[in-house]
Amino acid sequence: MSAYKKLQERLLRVAHLKHTSSMLKWDEAVMMPKGGVGIRSESLATLNNLIREELSKKENLMLIQQAKEDVTLNAWEKTNLDLIEKQVKISINTPEKLLIKMTESSIVAEQAWRSMREENNWKDFKPLLEKNINFVREYSNILGETLGLSPYDAMIDLYSPGVTQSYIDPIFNTLEEKLPDLLVRSEEKQKTLSTIKPSGPFNTEAQKRLSLDIMQSMGFNMNKGRLDTSHHPFCGDDPEDTRITTNYSGENFLQSLLGTCHETGHALYQFSLPEKWRRQPVGSYLGMSVHESQSLLMEMHACRSKEFTRFISPKLISLFGYQEAFEPRNLYNVFTSVKRDFIRIDADEVTYPFHVILRYELEKNLIGGNISVDDLPERWNTSMKNYLGINPKDDYAKGVMQDVHWPSGTFGYFPAYALGSLIAAQLFHNIKKDNTDAVSSIENGDFSGINSWLDKSIRSHGSLYGFDELLIKATGESLNANYFLDHVEERYC
Amino acid sequence: MSAYKKLQERLLRVAHLKHTSSMLKWDEAVMMPKGGVGIRSESLATLNNLIREELSKKENLMLIQQAKEDVTLNAWEKTNLDLIEKQVKISINTPEKLLIKMTESSIVAEQAWRSMREENNWKDFKPLLEKNINFVREYSNILGETLGLSPYDAMIDLYSPGVTQSYIDPIFNTLEEKLPDLLVRSEEKQKTLSTIKPSGPFNTEAQKRLSLDIMQSMGFNMNKGRLDTSHHPFCGDDPEDTRITTNYSGENFLQSLLGTCHETGHALYQFSLPEKWRRQPVGSYLGMSVHESQSLLMEMHACRSKEFTRFISPKLISLFGYQEAFEPRNLYNVFTSVKRDFIRIDADEVTYPFHVILRYELEKNLIGGNISVDDLPERWNTSMKNYLGINPKDDYAKGVMQDVHWPSGTFGYFPAYALGSLIAAQLFHNIKKDNTDAVSSIENGDFSGINSWLDKSIRSHGSLYGFDELLIKATGESLNANYFLDHVEERYC
Repeated sequence: MSAYKKLQERLLRVAHLKHTSSMLKWDEAVMMPKGGVGIRSESLATLNNLIREELSKKENLMLIQQAKEDVTLNAWEKTNLDLIEKQVKISINTPEKLLIKMTESSIVAEQAWRSMREENNWKDFKPLLEKNINFVREYSNILGETLGLSPYDAMIDLYSPGVTQSYIDPIFNTLEEKLPDLLVRSEEKQKTLSTIKPSGPFNTEAQKRLSLDIMQSMGFNMNKGRLDTSHHPFCGDDPEDTRITTNYSGENFLQSLLGTCHETGHALYQFSLPEKWRRQPVGSYLGMSVHESQSLLMEMHACRSKEFTRFISPKLISLFGYQEAFEPRNLYNVFTSVKRDFIRIDADEVTYPFHVILRYELEKNLIGGNISVDDLPERWNTSMKNYLGINPKDDYAKGVMQDVHWPSGTFGYFPAYALGSLIAAQLFHNIKKDNTDAVSSIENGDFSGINSWLDKSIRSHGSLYGFDELLIKATGESLNANYFLDHVEERYC
Repeated sequence: MSAYKKLQERLLRVAHLKHTSSMLKWDEAVMMPKGGVGIRSESLATLNNLIREELSKKENLMLIQQAKEDVTLNAWEKTNLDLIEKQVKISINTPEKLLIKMTESSIVAEQAWRSMREENNWKDFKPLLEKNINFVREYSNILGETLGLSPYDAMIDLYSPGVTQSYIDPIFNTLEEKLPDLLVRSEEKQKTLSTIKPSGPFNTEAQKRLSLDIMQSMGFNMNKGRLDTSHHPFCGDDPEDTRITTNYSGENFLQSLLGTCHETGHALYQFSLPEKWRRQPVGSYLGMSVHESQSLLMEMHACRSKEFTRFISPKLISLFGYQEAFEPRNLYNVFTSVKRDFIRIDADEVTYPFHVILRYELEKNLIGGNISVDDLPERWNTSMKNYLGINPKDDYAKGVMQDVHWPSGTFGYFPAYALGSLIAAQLFHNIKKDNTDAVSSIENGDFSGINSWLDKSIRSHGSLYGFDELLIKATGESLNANYFLDHVEERYC
């Protein structure tokens, strides 16, 4: 067996362990009884440790050197080898004990967060978060040295490979500069509209039927996945068994509906990853920025369009009974309403980037050790006041305790959401340019125009190209924030 | 670290992998979309392989020899060491490739069986079963040589350690000799009763509420487990996260209710295993015969008692509306009715042993190579005619295709069901003798008398004692089939 084939087999085993780990995490969020947290935490740590052992076998470095000299490798295999090398180096440099402790700590913190957020209990949650952050600081130092990046850049790279603070900062500065004016103008325009809010309660079972209906119209294959309920919506990670979750509110069916549209966007990316390179690094998605662009394109561009409101209006009337609020024109106003509010996952397109920038700045300083967990609530509230003019004060559930990311030990992920918005706008602009029917057919529940463009230009490439390379191949240019700003101007102002 | 401690740490890692594997299997039966079967099968094979690698490290044999000389080990640790040695030897002698292929084959066969059973499709299922059996034959030969047992004895030992065909045969002969007469007499007595069958349909949601209510009265801690639905009811395997399943029939609420009582019996055994020896072999249950005794004691003795009918009668009336059939005296007749029928899991206490003996004889001959899969349906039908006077003919779903065991590659398990019946009768006799209130308090939904006796005499011992040793400690004598036969005589004749 060639050195490359040997590495491929090892990575396949790693993929099985990662799939298993992802299933246990899905189960933990959706199914697990509370008493199971101890054994779950231990088992996940063992799986993580086995992944590390497999990747950090010393022989791997030798196999990589041998494989690099293999002239028979094609472009996919060469990129796969580079991606394997990166994983192997990270793994060899990360101490086993740190990995185990970090996983255990995040499982405990995430489980506690579920109830403590409901109880607005910052005091007891704080030491658990501190523990997480201490481990992440240690980890990001090691990661940074391995990749030749600063600690926080290394954490960003973990989720958005190739993206750094120096790449993000000018983009976020542009948003900070231009978005406040657009926000004010969108609010002024909104005042001229007489929008009727849909009136609940909305039966949960009916909401679930709606979600199942819409996700299938969008192209979700129920033979290869499920829809369930969890505190924080997410999408599991195997192309043949993709679990998405949503969250039902009796008073607001938009939360579950648009949450489902969002996670379905993620799922469709996975379904169309290159089948030939399944469970190899090169066959995987290209980081979370691109993943988020796929979900935000669906949620924000396709599913808040005028065409989509005409598609779902009769469904809403049939499920919940007639309301004037369900008329397409009013629905569009509801879907595109702008409101300065506390919760990121409920935020509209215009205010959303501020939520991300706030977290990005805090993470940067937390990982850098410039601020402590003690400082977080005040810093959070000051930024929120600064960006959106609102202050959650000591309602932590609406402030610093709202996201699952930090309790679950996930730092460096947030920038991907805002980058995803920008990519989505750029891709959608090109879809409309290349296929004038792609959007109009949404009115009939037909997403095939959008799906075939994305399949061809993004999804089927897996991780073959780098971040900018993929964007240039798909749209003819690098990431350009103007598509997003133009979209906001056009839709909201 | 001492040799013994090192071994203990390795077995802890094995326990995490087994827990993970058990969770993936639960998910496969309860949650997984059909398309997930490929990656699930691969992942389970990888987990099995990792368990094997951990157990079959050559260093383990040396550590075991060193640990045997450790004079500081207490009785629990010594037994733990013996059990570790057995696992290590089996693992070292079993080839990796066989293990992987056997697991993959059984996953595929079990998944196919789910739909093929519904379609009564024996023809397409047969080659999958043949593949399973070929692997099991190979495996049982290796296992037999390792343990100094015949191939089928080795398979029985896998599920009921210490039990062999020469131990089972005289017991089953006694049953074959004495039970037919008791069956005829119970049918004659039954003719004198005017039993009213409860009349459906019974709402599934209400059945589920009933199951949840009863299992909690029996002592199931919902903080440490769940109730779900699957084709074949089962009980998952961790004391802190015990998943039981049941199966709802709109026409017959007894199926889900008594299925839940049965699986709750299994769960209660797990909850009370010795906490100090969690996730070590000595802290585990003492094989499936004892496990089945715990479920059958609950299902057959506690939950088909007159006291239990008085406990649930008002619940049934409140959930499903009044029916004369729900009067306690009539319910007792329903609960203890006897009927020669095809399906093992729906069978009554009196006919049940025949279902087991039939499968035991077939397995014995299948593993021995005396009969082939081609012969199975005819052999099955002949035996069924012989024991119970009925013949499923070519309705395979009611015959050879009814059980999950063979599709899932499980051979040697069936005897445990009949041995479990005998143990249950012997234990229940002693519970009544030692605590006269234990049964009468069931009328108030109080199972504490039964639970505390079982906690003290069975559950808390884990695998410290051997099979007969445990029975002698708990009841003062070895396994004695007369308690079961007396129970049948008293209740049914």
